[in-house]
Amino acid sequence: MEVFDVNFFLTSFIVLQGQCSGGTFTEYNNLYNTALTGYNKDGRPLQDQNHVMIVVLDFSLLTIADLDDASSKLVTVGLFTILWRDEVITWNQSLYENTKELHIDESLVWKPSMALINTMSINVGLLGFKQSKIEYSSDGVAFWHIADRYQTTCDFDTTYFPFDKQTCELKIVAWDYTIQGLFIYPLKPTVDLTYFSENGAWELVSTETRSEYLAYYSVVVFSLNLKRRPLYFVIYRLIPVFTMLFLNTLVFILPSDSGERVGYAINCLLALAVFLTLVSEGLPGDSEPMPVIGYVLTVYLIISAIICVLTIFILRLHHKEENKEIPPSFRKMYNILTCATCKKRSRTVEAYLSTTDSENVEENDKHKKSSVLPLTWKKLSSRLDFICFISSLSSVITVGVVYFVIVMS
Amino acid sequence: MEVFDVNFFLTSFIVLQGQCSGGTFTEYNNLYNTALTGYNKDGRPLQDQNHVMIVVLDFSLLTIADLDDASSKLVTVGLFTILWRDEVITWNQSLYENTKELHIDESLVWKPSMALINTMSINVGLLGFKQSKIEYSSDGVAFWHIADRYQTTCDFDTTYFPFDKQTCELKIVAWDYTIQGLFIYPLKPTVDLTYFSENGAWELVSTETRSEYLAYYSVVVFSLNLKRRPLYFVIYRLIPVFTMLFLNTLVFILPSDSGERVGYAINCLLALAVFLTLVSEGLPGDSEPMPVIGYVLTVYLIISAIICVLTIFILRLHHKEENKEIPPSFRKMYNILTCATCKKRSRTVEAYLSTTDSENVEENDKHKKSSVLPLTWKKLSSRLDFICFISSLSSVITVGVVYFVIVMS
Amino acid sequence: MEVFDVNFFLTSFIVLQGQCSGGTFTEYNNLYNTALTGYNKDGRPLQDQNHVMIVVLDFSLLTIADLDDASSKLVTVGLFTILWRDEVITWNQSLYENTKELHIDESLVWKPSMALINTMSINVGLLGFKQSKIEYSSDGVAFWHIADRYQTTCDFDTTYFPFDKQTCELKIVAWDYTIQGLFIYPLKPTVDLTYFSENGAWELVSTETRSEYLAYYSVVVFSLNLKRRPLYFVIYRLIPVFTMLFLNTLVFILPSDSGERVGYAINCLLALAVFLTLVSEGLPGDSEPMPVIGYVLTVYLIISAIICVLTIFILRLHHKEENKEIPPSFRKMYNILTCATCKKRSRTVEAYLSTTDSENVEENDKHKKSSVLPLTWKKLSSRLDFICFISSLSSVITVGVVYFVIVMS
Amino acid sequence: MEVFDVNFFLTSFIVLQGQCSGGTFTEYNNLYNTALTGYNKDGRPLQDQNHVMIVVLDFSLLTIADLDDASSKLVTVGLFTILWRDEVITWNQSLYENTKELHIDESLVWKPSMALINTMSINVGLLGFKQSKIEYSSDGVAFWHIADRYQTTCDFDTTYFPFDKQTCELKIVAWDYTIQGLFIYPLKPTVDLTYFSENGAWELVSTETRSEYLAYYSVVVFSLNLKRRPLYFVIYRLIPVFTMLFLNTLVFILPSDSGERVGYAINCLLALAVFLTLVSEGLPGDSEPMPVIGYVLTVYLIISAIICVLTIFILRLHHKEENKEIPPSFRKMYNILTCATCKKRSRTVEAYLSTTDSENVEENDKHKKSSVLPLTWKKLSSRLDFICFISSLSSVITVGVVYFVIVMS
Amino acid sequence: MEVFDVNFFLTSFIVLQGQCSGGTFTEYNNLYNTALTGYNKDGRPLQDQNHVMIVVLDFSLLTIADLDDASSKLVTVGLFTILWRDEVITWNQSLYENTKELHIDESLVWKPSMALINTMSINVGLLGFKQSKIEYSSDGVAFWHIADRYQTTCDFDTTYFPFDKQTCELKIVAWDYTIQGLFIYPLKPTVDLTYFSENGAWELVSTETRSEYLAYYSVVVFSLNLKRRPLYFVIYRLIPVFTMLFLNTLVFILPSDSGERVGYAINCLLALAVFLTLVSEGLPGDSEPMPVIGYVLTVYLIISAIICVLTIFILRLHHKEENKEIPPSFRKMYNILTCATCKKRSRTVEAYLSTTDSENVEENDKHKKSSVLPLTWKKLSSRLDFICFISSLSSVITVGVVYFVIVMS
Repeated sequence: MEVFDVNFFLTSFIVLQGQCSGGTFTEYNNLYNTALTGYNKDGRPLQDQNHVMIVVLDFSLLTIADLDDASSKLVTVGLFTILWRDEVITWNQSLYENTKELHIDESLVWKPSMALINTMSINVGLLGFKQSKIEYSSDGVAFWHIADRYQTTCDFDTTYFPFDKQTCELKIVAWDYTIQGLFIYPLKPTVDLTYFSENGAWELVSTETRSEYLAYYSVVVFSLNLKRRPLYFVIYRLIPVFTMLFLNTLVFILPSDSGERVGYAINCLLALAVFLTLVSEGLPGDSEPMPVIGYVLTVYLIISAIICVLTIFILRLHHKEENKEIPPSFRKMYNILTCATCKKRSRTVEAYLSTTDSENVEENDKHKKSSVLPLTWKKLSSRLDFICFISSLSSVITVGVVYFVIVMS
Repeated sequence: MEVFDVNFFLTSFIVLQGQCSGGTFTEYNNLYNTALTGYNKDGRPLQDQNHVMIVVLDFSLLTIADLDDASSKLVTVGLFTILWRDEVITWNQSLYENTKELHIDESLVWKPSMALINTMSINVGLLGFKQSKIEYSSDGVAFWHIADRYQTTCDFDTTYFPFDKQTCELKIVAWDYTIQGLFIYPLKPTVDLTYFSENGAWELVSTETRSEYLAYYSVVVFSLNLKRRPLYFVIYRLIPVFTMLFLNTLVFILPSDSGERVGYAINCLLALAVFLTLVSEGLPGDSEPMPVIGYVLTVYLIISAIICVLTIFILRLHHKEENKEIPPSFRKMYNILTCATCKKRSRTVEAYLSTTDSENVEENDKHKKSSVLPLTWKKLSSRLDFICFISSLSSVITVGVVYFVIVMS
Repeated sequence: MEVFDVNFFLTSFIVLQGQCSGGTFTEYNNLYNTALTGYNKDGRPLQDQNHVMIVVLDFSLLTIADLDDASSKLVTVGLFTILWRDEVITWNQSLYENTKELHIDESLVWKPSMALINTMSINVGLLGFKQSKIEYSSDGVAFWHIADRYQTTCDFDTTYFPFDKQTCELKIVAWDYTIQGLFIYPLKPTVDLTYFSENGAWELVSTETRSEYLAYYSVVVFSLNLKRRPLYFVIYRLIPVFTMLFLNTLVFILPSDSGERVGYAINCLLALAVFLTLVSEGLPGDSEPMPVIGYVLTVYLIISAIICVLTIFILRLHHKEENKEIPPSFRKMYNILTCATCKKRSRTVEAYLSTTDSENVEENDKHKKSSVLPLTWKKLSSRLDFICFISSLSSVITVGVVYFVIVMS
Repeated sequence: MEVFDVNFFLTSFIVLQGQCSGGTFTEYNNLYNTALTGYNKDGRPLQDQNHVMIVVLDFSLLTIADLDDASSKLVTVGLFTILWRDEVITWNQSLYENTKELHIDESLVWKPSMALINTMSINVGLLGFKQSKIEYSSDGVAFWHIADRYQTTCDFDTTYFPFDKQTCELKIVAWDYTIQGLFIYPLKPTVDLTYFSENGAWELVSTETRSEYLAYYSVVVFSLNLKRRPLYFVIYRLIPVFTMLFLNTLVFILPSDSGERVGYAINCLLALAVFLTLVSEGLPGDSEPMPVIGYVLTVYLIISAIICVLTIFILRLHHKEENKEIPPSFRKMYNILTCATCKKRSRTVEAYLSTTDSENVEENDKHKKSSVLPLTWKKLSSRLDFICFISSLSSVITVGVVYFVIVMS
Repeated sequence: MEVFDVNFFLTSFIVLQGQCSGGTFTEYNNLYNTALTGYNKDGRPLQDQNHVMIVVLDFSLLTIADLDDASSKLVTVGLFTILWRDEVITWNQSLYENTKELHIDESLVWKPSMALINTMSINVGLLGFKQSKIEYSSDGVAFWHIADRYQTTCDFDTTYFPFDKQTCELKIVAWDYTIQGLFIYPLKPTVDLTYFSENGAWELVSTETRSEYLAYYSVVVFSLNLKRRPLYFVIYRLIPVFTMLFLNTLVFILPSDSGERVGYAINCLLALAVFLTLVSEGLPGDSEPMPVIGYVLTVYLIISAIICVLTIFILRLHHKEENKEIPPSFRKMYNILTCATCKKRSRTVEAYLSTTDSENVEENDKHKKSSVLPLTWKKLSSRLDFICFISSLSSVITVGVVYFVIVMS
């Protein structure tokens, strides 16, 4: 039955748009006054009050004006077309000089009370201009057009920020009558995008409409599937962060004698903390769901702190006096780090060559007992620098890759 | 009597939702006009004006849209169902073709004036759409539904921030009549959560409703017990602060010769001050109650300042010329710090070994009188470094543990 | 006469609250219609138009929602009780089945037009709900209750910030009639605090009410004496600033050879500048009155700059080559600084002891001509360091103490 | 026909402004009452309802109050003059004592419902004061003046920011009637700028008006072509950025022995990151279109990071021990860098001269095998410094020039 | 004629304020009903419609609530007194028991439609409370009082910020009637300041009122001449900036060997950039007019950058190896810098004295060829330091003085 109704409405609608109202002003006034005499705008205009009043909605989206994840707000501009059949305001066209339509002020007639249930405004106002006119055809089909700027809430799931997809809804609830008295449903399965102009920050992927219930009331939902355009975040946040992280790992390349290693490491860490703060301020203050990027930046902060700790540790080794004995544990570690087995031969050669250097000759004089392995604190720290550089750089890259794999899938 | 009333209302309510209004449009209009003839919307619709008008409220919470501790604001979206018995608008169904319900515009009939007394809006508006309809059953029971976005104040107690629990209330006061004339009370002992969808920043623990008085007026309170989800704060604020603090204590591990100790200490202190400022800006500007986290961060700032002072002091010792005599007081302190009694033997051995080092031999030549204890300024500062590192790290951890014990209990 | 009136009102008021309106709904309607027939809401309801209409106001403060010095705003929630005698709406109770009270919609009767003259809202609205009812007793005394959230300006005097006291006022002006026609005055000498709940940032010290004139109109002023709770500012602003200042003075303790003195001094200065900016942003942008704390922070900034200058100057002396002659003026200064007269003897001894040091022996070899006073550039700079440390620390403390003495008194 | 209409309106308009309404107050009231008797404000005042009602709009721009690219908002203050012919309100002047005009409250007569479809306000209100009067001449031409502050959206294209041109539009849609019933078009081809006062941030280049359709409705568009004044951005953002970049390239001039190179490089990088953040916050959060300046700053950030990497690399070479062999690859690179062929001779001379220096004599003693080319690590790093300085400075300038060429064209 | 009118109004006004309305309530109602019978509020209440309706305005300023140059907003609270003569509402006092005044609700009578044309509010509302009463004397003079908070735009000229003077205007336009029908002009030549309370940020220098035209409408302008109190800006912005600049020039005093020169210079530059940003954010984003202070700060930034460049250059000279020949060009420059002619003799003596120093003796041994002028790189850099210090300090002071001369005049 409902499908039939929609087609009926559509037919009336299309027919009506193409015609003009005939007759004189006087005849129009006669019809107008006759139609409203004895009309009760507090009763559903159905001859049989046991029937359900059926109202059909169409939504034409013009623009997505704003979509803010920090305040969970969607602002849209659009046009509602609302159709129903008023069984009281009907007339015989031939009796009124072929007058085909009546425009009656909305305050004088029955109209469905509908409200945006998920509005952001403090007062949930009923839809409508308060001053607009409703158009009636001679068979009682009422056409009501509402254009407005709708500020609705949207439950964001920022887990995969900034590569996230969101589904935002405009929920229209029919008020004043339960579903036994008033039933609303969408005219088309999708939102009308004929006059839609693109938004710069979000891409509209698809739309759909559906019918629902809230308590005893009928609800129509217009839902928009949106995809964030990530370029802004990538350019202004991710590139600086990754640049900073890459520079941070370079602290191990910086010569230990430069006297600037720790200052460099702490500066990189501070810069990362600043970017972490910037990103966190641009996100909603919700703890559930937590964006993956938040965890990633925290992990990066901790990696940066570990780099700082390692820098201090290596610097301490580097500044040890050369005549102090290197403990066997360090020697062992050194051997392991230089991959004792696989590089044995090459190292022997190396050791041979290095002893011929003037430097090592001197050292040999001093440290007789360490002659087998002419390991010095400086050498140890230099080796550690290399190991740390490789491992910190690879951990930064690994975390980044894992993040992109997660959010992209 | 009141309990009876509630049941009576509930019965009417449930029955009404399942039926539809019979009769024709004309008969509906007759009934409508008869009911409103001679009706006075400024008088309580009670046949005996000595009676108290009893109004029952139910609140169905849809979402907690916002809960902001800085501005002490709670924003909720919900649905009020308001029920009372109008003894004037009653009719015999059989006389009106079985018409079971009337929908009358709220501006034409008596209705309880109720206001949210703890609203954030500048104008305390009366509840209501200004345009909605009230539904009457034939025995005069009136059903009034109000859906809105309510912006109310909530008195936050941020002492245990961010592990705090809050109780926020929506206080509805019945206006225009004192409790002798109008009495409101909640329909159910809790808020209806059938259509509730979770909030990302706060967890709704439980709800309750109760009746109260304000001056001469009847009040109904819907209270929500909420618990903050702390993950956001932990990730974006606490982890960076603790990372920074841990790095700060590492200043004593940094070699004194690196020439970066003081710069490192002051940078860590500045970073802490920045985070203190960030946290303070996210909290309400109230001095009472003061969040414990505020005191903790201040204590951490002072610890960080003490670390800075100690660093400067140790650096001064370190830079003393070696041929300057170490005062006996410092020697004593050194002995105490190295735990004279318990480590005596090990130290003797140590001293023995060290004198065999080439370094100490040289020193022995210079400082004859200090031969018993070959204490140098460098040794002293190195020992102090170790002591300071241990004590600062343990004080940071202690304060953190004490904080968590306080806020968690 | 006026004192009599108040008592008369109070008596009627108290009596009325304890009774209920008798009679039937029909009888109530009869009375209602009789009372409003021929009523003119544009005329003062006085039988003799030469009389002054006297209106009495009571204000019950519920909460101080916000008090913001940056925008000079006070937000309060409260309940106005407004009383007057309508000489036209009176009736004989016995004729109307003992009906004791009438509730009439405010749009149908005369009521005093009153406005909050110091409101923050852009439109100075008249007080009132626009929909509430006014209660009349049989002798014509009208009771009107208004609860609202009032956003008023408050002229802050932040001279002694954050230890300041403010007096904020709600000024109600009677509109439409000059004082010859309408006179309003407060019911009680203080604001009613029965339902008041404390504010976390401000303490309500006392309240008072008074009558005033504005041009030709009668005004009632409800004034609130408030005292700021300074803990927030002390914890989050003053403690960091003083910590920073104390650390700043320590620059002179930092060894000159550390190579970090100037960096340390400039970092402390920058931190102070940041806090100065933070404090300045939290204050109103007014130049009159200027908070004392603003001057104090500026003085601290200048002290910090002087410390920086001195650090550079001392460093310059310290870096002078030792074989350069110290000019007599410096020698003289040195003598003065070491307090030539009072410390003469001790210094002679000191000089004696020092010449026995190996260090000075070497120096004596080099500088024959300076043998009388073995003053070196390093010694001079070291002495200056000590003097500067003492004087900068004492000036910081002095300024702080002077500030507290000023603001506390 | 339409052109004729406009002239007709203009004539009436001009004539009317110069005259005054004759007659007495009584006669005016007679005419007023006669005109409104039987008037139906819900019917188009056309004797033949088959005709289209034509409404003409003129827009006089007073000021551009605000134009904010971050929120895509245009705020204008202007004056609409709306003209149409009401065929019902007409009279014979001679019958009414020469009364030439009627002023009727807008709520009593038919008027075109028009709305700003691209408004920023949450409620798309119909145009109009709600209380103003419409002026009618005796031939039925209605003059309606509306002055307001219009807050409209403007789709910014910030690609060439801050040297961009924008076209912002005020779109007026005729409501309630489809184009068969109501047609609006602009009075003049441009916006009236007689009373326009210039805006400090944007230059109004030109204006135009046009007619359009939206769904079934008639639309008039007033479009403003604006050009941003870039001085603010140049002074406060570009000059600091370029200053910072220039200083950044100077890191290669800074002596390697100064021990401040890396600190200097990282500080310049951080300053750039701060300015990048400042610029990004002043732009809309859109990813499409992305301003070219965003890419430029990102490229600059990467150049700055590369400078940092090169600094570390050169510093590493500089700190290499001189007795370590320089690998042939470095030698080759050095030769290439010093442009082996073209500078051969000059270098030979240089080499000759340098060997006579005492420094090189010493070096010659140490490194026999490198006697042919007395290349040292220090020399290599010094040469690299020069190359890097030249190339970084030229790349900074190149990117800047390319940017200006793109945005200026 | 107009001057006469004003006096006439003033007389009526003063007389009326001192009297009270006689008669009984019943008689008052009779008069009220008589006056309004047949009244048409859409017609100008002039017996001869050819006359111009003259309306007189007086404005009493209470406070300047806000004056914000960033958003070009002026917020004032004030009281309008509006006077005109209604030739229809007149009566013979003796016929109505000496009733001297009528108070009629503004919605029932003709009143001039006036609007603030330069309002900041989105909807240009007509002036008025919507509910207030207009007072009529028996000769028809109408008194209308409007108190409100007015949010108007003010076209700021911040060229001489913060020592600027502004002229802000409240422009009231008479609506609905052209100047042939309605003419408004100010009652007094200045704004009434009887109840004015001073603003903390701006000083009210003088006020004036004048009559104007806008299109065909009459306009009254109340203009306020204001002078900014600059103390806030001086204390919180200029003093820190000049402190920072002074410290910046001290970089040349800092010993070259300290190893902190470049770090110091870049830190000062960054601090300046931060203050430049702070100042720019407090100013409107307009490019025309550009505040002089913006240019000054940019010049200071460039000076600071030049200081940084010079520091690097001098440091490079200082780090040159001493055995490298100083090119003749540098020698020449040195001679010029030391002012060859005027200081010749003193320098010769100096040179003589210095050669006797042990230092120079050593140098003489090394550099035979430079014996004539024992110029070293260190000497050259030291001399350059001094020159640069003097010139940078003087350029900073010069720019500052020029700025103050410009803005003060």
